[in-house]
Amino acid sequence: MSGESGPADPRTGQSRSGPAPATEEDIATAVTAAVSAGVEARNLSVHWWRDALRAGAAALEDARHELVEMADRETALGTERLVPEHSRMCGQLRMFADLVESGRHLDATLDLADPASAPPRPDIRRLGTPLGPVVVFEASNFPLAFGVAGNDTASALAAGCPVIVKAHPLHPTTSERVATILAEAIRAHGGPHALVSLIHGGPDVAKQLVEHPHVAAVGFTGSFGAGRALFDLASARPSPIPVFAEMGSLNPIIVLPRAAETRGTTIGTQIGSAVVLGAGQLCTKPGLVFVPASADDLTGALRNAVVSSHVRPLLGENLRSRYEEGVARASARSDGVQRGEQTGGDGFFVSPVVIEIETEQFVAESIWKEEIFGPATTVVGYRSIEALTAAIATIEGSLAGAVYADPDERVDSRSAVSALAARCGRVVYEGPTTGVAVTAAMEHGGPFPATTAPGTTSVGTSAVARFLRPVCFQSMPDDLLPPPLRDANPLGITRLVDGEWTSSAIARDP
Amino acid sequence: MSGESGPADPRTGQSRSGPAPATEEDIATAVTAAVSAGVEARNLSVHWWRDALRAGAAALEDARHELVEMADRETALGTERLVPEHSRMCGQLRMFADLVESGRHLDATLDLADPASAPPRPDIRRLGTPLGPVVVFEASNFPLAFGVAGNDTASALAAGCPVIVKAHPLHPTTSERVATILAEAIRAHGGPHALVSLIHGGPDVAKQLVEHPHVAAVGFTGSFGAGRALFDLASARPSPIPVFAEMGSLNPIIVLPRAAETRGTTIGTQIGSAVVLGAGQLCTKPGLVFVPASADDLTGALRNAVVSSHVRPLLGENLRSRYEEGVARASARSDGVQRGEQTGGDGFFVSPVVIEIETEQFVAESIWKEEIFGPATTVVGYRSIEALTAAIATIEGSLAGAVYADPDERVDSRSAVSALAARCGRVVYEGPTTGVAVTAAMEHGGPFPATTAPGTTSVGTSAVARFLRPVCFQSMPDDLLPPPLRDANPLGITRLVDGEWTSSAIARDP
Repeated sequence: MSGESGPADPRTGQSRSGPAPATEEDIATAVTAAVSAGVEARNLSVHWWRDALRAGAAALEDARHELVEMADRETALGTERLVPEHSRMCGQLRMFADLVESGRHLDATLDLADPASAPPRPDIRRLGTPLGPVVVFEASNFPLAFGVAGNDTASALAAGCPVIVKAHPLHPTTSERVATILAEAIRAHGGPHALVSLIHGGPDVAKQLVEHPHVAAVGFTGSFGAGRALFDLASARPSPIPVFAEMGSLNPIIVLPRAAETRGTTIGTQIGSAVVLGAGQLCTKPGLVFVPASADDLTGALRNAVVSSHVRPLLGENLRSRYEEGVARASARSDGVQRGEQTGGDGFFVSPVVIEIETEQFVAESIWKEEIFGPATTVVGYRSIEALTAAIATIEGSLAGAVYADPDERVDSRSAVSALAARCGRVVYEGPTTGVAVTAAMEHGGPFPATTAPGTTSVGTSAVARFLRPVCFQSMPDDLLPPPLRDANPLGITRLVDGEWTSSAIARDP
Repeated sequence: MSGESGPADPRTGQSRSGPAPATEEDIATAVTAAVSAGVEARNLSVHWWRDALRAGAAALEDARHELVEMADRETALGTERLVPEHSRMCGQLRMFADLVESGRHLDATLDLADPASAPPRPDIRRLGTPLGPVVVFEASNFPLAFGVAGNDTASALAAGCPVIVKAHPLHPTTSERVATILAEAIRAHGGPHALVSLIHGGPDVAKQLVEHPHVAAVGFTGSFGAGRALFDLASARPSPIPVFAEMGSLNPIIVLPRAAETRGTTIGTQIGSAVVLGAGQLCTKPGLVFVPASADDLTGALRNAVVSSHVRPLLGENLRSRYEEGVARASARSDGVQRGEQTGGDGFFVSPVVIEIETEQFVAESIWKEEIFGPATTVVGYRSIEALTAAIATIEGSLAGAVYADPDERVDSRSAVSALAARCGRVVYEGPTTGVAVTAAMEHGGPFPATTAPGTTSVGTSAVARFLRPVCFQSMPDDLLPPPLRDANPLGITRLVDGEWTSSAIARDP
């Protein structure tokens, strides 16, 4: 913190001092150190990595009170939200520690020599190897779980990659503190000095990081504009690198007629509460809800749950102004905009909003397919299943979608699930799109514009695959192979050997 | 074949008639039909896909004589090379049929509900789903195995994606025939009409295909220039799509001092023969060989194996002129260029070439890091292990690399293998880089500029992952889940259930 103008307090709007942006030299130093750390890190054992990730989790766990207070002061997200987010951050690091121990992320695949096949097949053994230094851009809305020690960092470290984090300018103090704790825990555990480092700055610094020739990949969670800009920079490099950007998303919910008829109030309240959760600053916020045009109970309950809620201030002035612009654009196009009360004082408070339109208008105008980040949602009334289907067909990629349906409307449920699966990374049944479980089967991703890499996820154990590059070894003597591929299977991991999963050693003829 | 000016006969240089390039309307029709085929294809069972791929393989097998003759007329690669390539094409389709049956490519992952965890974990189940219509660009140098029914097409079909193939202009007749046989076999098996289609044309047609909003991904094998151009077009789209381009590669080989001393002649002859295989028109041709500067036996044997060989004509006039330009550039920079005899008559014959330089020159000049496609290689003499290490450090990504070493030089072997693994997708011990086994463990890929997607492979079963997008289902009723994810495991596939691989059904409490 050097006295530069920094982020303002969301509760009061008063500005605070912030860190100075990194210089070109700072960036060069950070990347060079990361490259060296990556080379050193190749000699570290699986057990070292497991224990280092656990040591990081334990140190962050110990600092819970301090980190939650600090994050709350910077983001105003509230301690009741930040305490579980802190637990999630620590849990993610531990999950990746367990994954590293299992060796599953290496995708170790062995095809033993078969001299009898035509042509004779040599011995071929493959595993994932670290891609190289990864630049991680922190999200604004999850200062801990998608922050310095969040998913992207944890999964890149699990892959064996050094990480340079670009701090989010709305919570630099929290970023500094988490980076210090994590890096110190890794160093205390005997790790290389620069396995995790932190850089402050704006778009210029971001550009320099993404264009640095020794940076191998980028992880990002944030707005469509910023994610697309990073993707464009990375793709235009002399040597392009992958950008795993998780960007905006509408997260459509479909409520089928019978469900709306029999449980409209319950469903409307549930969806409305999900809209205002965290002041609507969630990448999985339901931004689009398709309901029968006649479902007054449902729409009323949803409207009420949204507009009657006391929402927290948004994270920053730019988020507030973009929210207000989005609501103004919608108001210019529709009479169906309902605004709630704006609570709070001089901070970045906004009123929650429900926009009500019908499918014809939704299909005809592109504005309804633009995300409004914050406590707003668009309720689209449909007068027939055909009108619903036609409307869904105009939606682009989203992170998640959901279907509410009664058991006796299975045919339409099947179509709805299938239509959402064609556009989303995750399809929920009978629940809102918010809430992302951190498990092996989670898919937090989706087709563009939800992400720039539809084959990947940024949450769950599969996130590590983004930062690994397969290498195979042909006819290699056993002692020259990486340990996970050796005959004896010294790490005891599960491997695909000649098409079968096994944790056994390779038996050799005596 | 419509009487347009087409590719010339490589053996005589005489031009032939070729197909007319596709019009904008042809392209629009093909993509629309592919989209419909993709939608229809979603309702086809795993067993349908397995049998369709096998039916395609059988029909192409039946046409072996015709296809080999046809491909030889167009490419002059020789029947002794094209017969095994034809077998490989059919074998690849069968391998993907087996993969589809195993369900392994779906990466089915199930995390069952755990109401006791904090927060309570919902039931989450994930599998790979088809990305959508894939445009495949045929390679020039493998008219069958990397052609219409080659790796890219077979793996995209295995993923459930419709394929539009852009025929290579150097063997359009073979492309037409293979496309007809494969598409007819799929249709005879009851498949959608446009699951595989063929488009002819040049860069304009390529651009229109890659920019078409309904195309979801691109597979490509060919030159760096063309691959990079397609990547740039795809990345600049309003909705970017992945390009899996396998491009140029130097494929460095390191011969360590003791190996050169004890077996120089054998090793030199083996590497030299690999250089001229298929007139050097292989993506895995050893284009760079590091040998001790004093290894005269080895260098002599290598030089002799290359310059004394009677090489076939190159595939086309543009390949010949690019080859001659590359050799001329090298000759302008070095006295160490040795040319063999140019055999043959008016066709696209060239003389094989060995370029001999030392590490200092290699490190200093970028020209030695440019691929010369054809029967040429650069032998780089090193005077110390330090000089070798410094030279290797200047090499970019390659598909493959190789190390020749004696058992008593293990320390240097380990460094050499590790240096190549950091730059290549595959590292061979005691053999040339040519020869790509089609297995589960194969990695035919590598860091840029070898490919545009270092995390993927274009050969072997893992190639299918390029064309799949994970989707997870949360709290979904069993009958609304895709069959591979249902409790009963009706397909009997191996799934990762709560972290364990199993092919068992999910047991439910009564």
